[in-house]
Amino acid sequence: MDKTLAELAQHVGGAVVGDGQVIIERVAPIEEAGAGAITFLANPRYRRHLSDCRASAIIIGLEVAQGLPLGDGKGYLVASDPYLAFAKILKLFEVSPYFSETVSAFAHVDPTSELGAAVTIFSQAYVSGGAKIGRGTVLYPGVFLGAGSQVGEDCVLHPNVVVREGCRIGNRVILHAGVVIGSDGFGYAGRGDGRVKIPQIGVVVVEDDVEIGANTTVDRATLGRTVIGRGTKIDNLVQIAHNVVIGENSVIAAQAGIAGSTRIGRNVTLAGQVGVVNHIEIGDGATIGPQSGVAKRVAPGAVLSSGLPASPHQEWLRVMTLLPQLPKLWQAVRGLEKKLAQLAKREGSKI
Amino acid sequence: MDKTLAELAQHVGGAVVGDGQVIIERVAPIEEAGAGAITFLANPRYRRHLSDCRASAIIIGLEVAQGLPLGDGKGYLVASDPYLAFAKILKLFEVSPYFSETVSAFAHVDPTSELGAAVTIFSQAYVSGGAKIGRGTVLYPGVFLGAGSQVGEDCVLHPNVVVREGCRIGNRVILHAGVVIGSDGFGYAGRGDGRVKIPQIGVVVVEDDVEIGANTTVDRATLGRTVIGRGTKIDNLVQIAHNVVIGENSVIAAQAGIAGSTRIGRNVTLAGQVGVVNHIEIGDGATIGPQSGVAKRVAPGAVLSSGLPASPHQEWLRVMTLLPQLPKLWQAVRGLEKKLAQLAKREGSKI
Amino acid sequence: MDKTLAELAQHVGGAVVGDGQVIIERVAPIEEAGAGAITFLANPRYRRHLSDCRASAIIIGLEVAQGLPLGDGKGYLVASDPYLAFAKILKLFEVSPYFSETVSAFAHVDPTSELGAAVTIFSQAYVSGGAKIGRGTVLYPGVFLGAGSQVGEDCVLHPNVVVREGCRIGNRVILHAGVVIGSDGFGYAGRGDGRVKIPQIGVVVVEDDVEIGANTTVDRATLGRTVIGRGTKIDNLVQIAHNVVIGENSVIAAQAGIAGSTRIGRNVTLAGQVGVVNHIEIGDGATIGPQSGVAKRVAPGAVLSSGLPASPHQEWLRVMTLLPQLPKLWQAVRGLEKKLAQLAKREGSKI
Repeated sequence: MDKTLAELAQHVGGAVVGDGQVIIERVAPIEEAGAGAITFLANPRYRRHLSDCRASAIIIGLEVAQGLPLGDGKGYLVASDPYLAFAKILKLFEVSPYFSETVSAFAHVDPTSELGAAVTIFSQAYVSGGAKIGRGTVLYPGVFLGAGSQVGEDCVLHPNVVVREGCRIGNRVILHAGVVIGSDGFGYAGRGDGRVKIPQIGVVVVEDDVEIGANTTVDRATLGRTVIGRGTKIDNLVQIAHNVVIGENSVIAAQAGIAGSTRIGRNVTLAGQVGVVNHIEIGDGATIGPQSGVAKRVAPGAVLSSGLPASPHQEWLRVMTLLPQLPKLWQAVRGLEKKLAQLAKREGSKI
Repeated sequence: MDKTLAELAQHVGGAVVGDGQVIIERVAPIEEAGAGAITFLANPRYRRHLSDCRASAIIIGLEVAQGLPLGDGKGYLVASDPYLAFAKILKLFEVSPYFSETVSAFAHVDPTSELGAAVTIFSQAYVSGGAKIGRGTVLYPGVFLGAGSQVGEDCVLHPNVVVREGCRIGNRVILHAGVVIGSDGFGYAGRGDGRVKIPQIGVVVVEDDVEIGANTTVDRATLGRTVIGRGTKIDNLVQIAHNVVIGENSVIAAQAGIAGSTRIGRNVTLAGQVGVVNHIEIGDGATIGPQSGVAKRVAPGAVLSSGLPASPHQEWLRVMTLLPQLPKLWQAVRGLEKKLAQLAKREGSKI
Repeated sequence: MDKTLAELAQHVGGAVVGDGQVIIERVAPIEEAGAGAITFLANPRYRRHLSDCRASAIIIGLEVAQGLPLGDGKGYLVASDPYLAFAKILKLFEVSPYFSETVSAFAHVDPTSELGAAVTIFSQAYVSGGAKIGRGTVLYPGVFLGAGSQVGEDCVLHPNVVVREGCRIGNRVILHAGVVIGSDGFGYAGRGDGRVKIPQIGVVVVEDDVEIGANTTVDRATLGRTVIGRGTKIDNLVQIAHNVVIGENSVIAAQAGIAGSTRIGRNVTLAGQVGVVNHIEIGDGATIGPQSGVAKRVAPGAVLSSGLPASPHQEWLRVMTLLPQLPKLWQAVRGLEKKLAQLAKREGSKI
């Protein structure tokens, strides 16, 4: 697996500063990287870490490179997108886990299910009747596939993932531990003792190259489909309600929640703990800041925030006491304006 | 399963407009519904979808009906509560999953547990000693029932649900995948290195007709009971802390959290991501808007909000910079009022 | 197990008021406690419950004791830290669950794993190759230990806990049902169709005496370690992102979320639903109030808040309409100040 720094630079389309022939054996965090290791420093703020760094090479961006005495004897790999270079080099050195490409005798696999070649099913996984699993896919222990569900090729379903009946997962999808796909949408009609459950007979469609974080939940549609678009990445503990449709390549951070039937465009970013109400649309490329509440349509490309920055408790209490009095404050200011105008008029001056 | 539109209208107590003898075979979303399908349009906002709709019949409410040329040759089922009509018709056409009404040889069922008739236990479920399971209940793979726990009749426990020791689940309860009932409450005494865990020896009681969403957690009481009242519906990823008591027929949306010992009344609605502090009471029929923080007692029937609407980032930054200066702003206005009064007095005018 | 009240008082270092020889057989909540039970009342607010209380003894603090007619014939155990006394007495009466100290034949335990003495592994648990489990540890059904993971002594891993490859859990750690340790951090480079996953090859280290609540997720580091410090207690449904480091004895309430690479000090308290951005530091002993958003460095010992108290919906709407106009309000006030000064000047008065 060993590579020279020059080979790595070529792999990522970057430039070498220093000795390109130094051998790189692994990737390590900057505080721990020693001889044989390549490490990574993207943020100019952390430039001070460089002086103590004993790595054989450091991946940096142009911004960091500009402030450096590059002839300091250290090896540098300078890349225009250092994160991307880092990702590619990590990928090179990543040790893929070994999969048996067999079905454990201690898994339950219904005879009416269809399995592609080289599928790995660990013991204690459960595959229901009519389920289809594509070539090379891995089901860890505790995974449950419901009746007639489909999982494409080269997917990894981590331990205790649940994909309920009829749901469809594309190719190269990663579902982290505890993810639930296809739980019933939260729908009731009537009220009080007369409240009845609206049967949720739709499905979830997760398109290719999606990754979904641990313990995230995606509800099935009432009718039709809840859709997670191709390439979209979802973090841990996110809630996606019934009939939500998310476009391609969007990014949804941890603990965000999207209420029923809302449509999220392509390349949208929702930061952590964002909440989006039901039945609205968030346009392509929009970015919503942490903890924001989105209550109405968002235009494409909009950058919205509503998270409140924490402040010292006593100060905050004072502000919170005054906040409900904003209407009174406006009234006071309007009153002052009027009185001042009267006074000025009486006095004959123009202000 | 096929029904005429007239039969469906009779089933839900609605009126037919158009041909009551048209045969309905299924329910479909409005964009996909063709001949033989009934669909649903509740929101007048979406009335424009009607023109393209090729369904054999459409469930609508009076509000939608009023704006329509009802003699357009389409079949309509007009109902006073169209959601309820829709729920009942979906229920008619719902294909219930098949359950074997047997216990898998690959489940672990302790010999000291008691099982009612027609119980289905899938392989890889685990039933501890002393547990009791009522007639017709279904335990999917990965379900864990702790020692002495009880689950009533006609319940469905989806894959990987955990009900810990001593907890009691009523009849017709649905627990979605990954729900945890009876985890230890979050209670400690002392501080720093001297902090000790307060044993949590109470239980959770989930009453009849409750439904709890995927990956929601309900902690056991320190002493006594955490209670989810009859008919209450809880969405995904909700946190219910120790000793919380929730009344009947309340509705709690996704990612809401209720801290310890708080009492929630009957018919209360908590919207998504609401947080409620510990040791307070929310009165019957109260409604709390999305993302609100509830820090003190709420009167019955109150309608509260505190979620902040997202706004353009730059505007928001400006507002957030000024918000901490509210006290100063009030002072400025008070100062102006005083000065203006002095000026007016000196001038001899009355304003 | 029966103890006299005097023995209990001695055990916790408290004082008896009343008959020290009364026999205590159990702990019960105040509403249900009868003869033979000891109960607990810490909050002076609830003092009124005392009159109806039929417990044989009541644990109280000095504050409650002061307002009482202590010679009322009831038994009291007065303690300086009544919560701590309560915790210790509950611990005395707690019935520990029985563990077989054997490995179920229906668990999967890789032959290359190493198990200490008296380890209990329930059926349907899964232990991967190279995993190590310390003496006395318990793995409930559905637990998954990844390749080369380590769990120390006297730990309890509740049902369906996942500890992924290479992660290390200390001694006396409690992981509640559904906890996921070591899921991939949420890291990507590039954008749109060119977005690539950054391999997450680090681990999670959970130190001794940590307790983690149900369905909480802790992501593995990109490189290096995500760390949960010794004695730290984490509630349900919390998100800990990659490379976060939490110090000793901190307390993190339910549904809080900490973004990547942030460092949380020792003895820090995060209340429920707090969100902390990435790459910042929260100093030792800081306390952050419920629902607060923490966007920048927090000094040691700071007490911050930003949660918004819920208020009546109509009032709130009015305030929310005015909030974005704060900049205009400031301008209006500045304008008034200027005009008033001009007017005063023209008039020759000094105000």
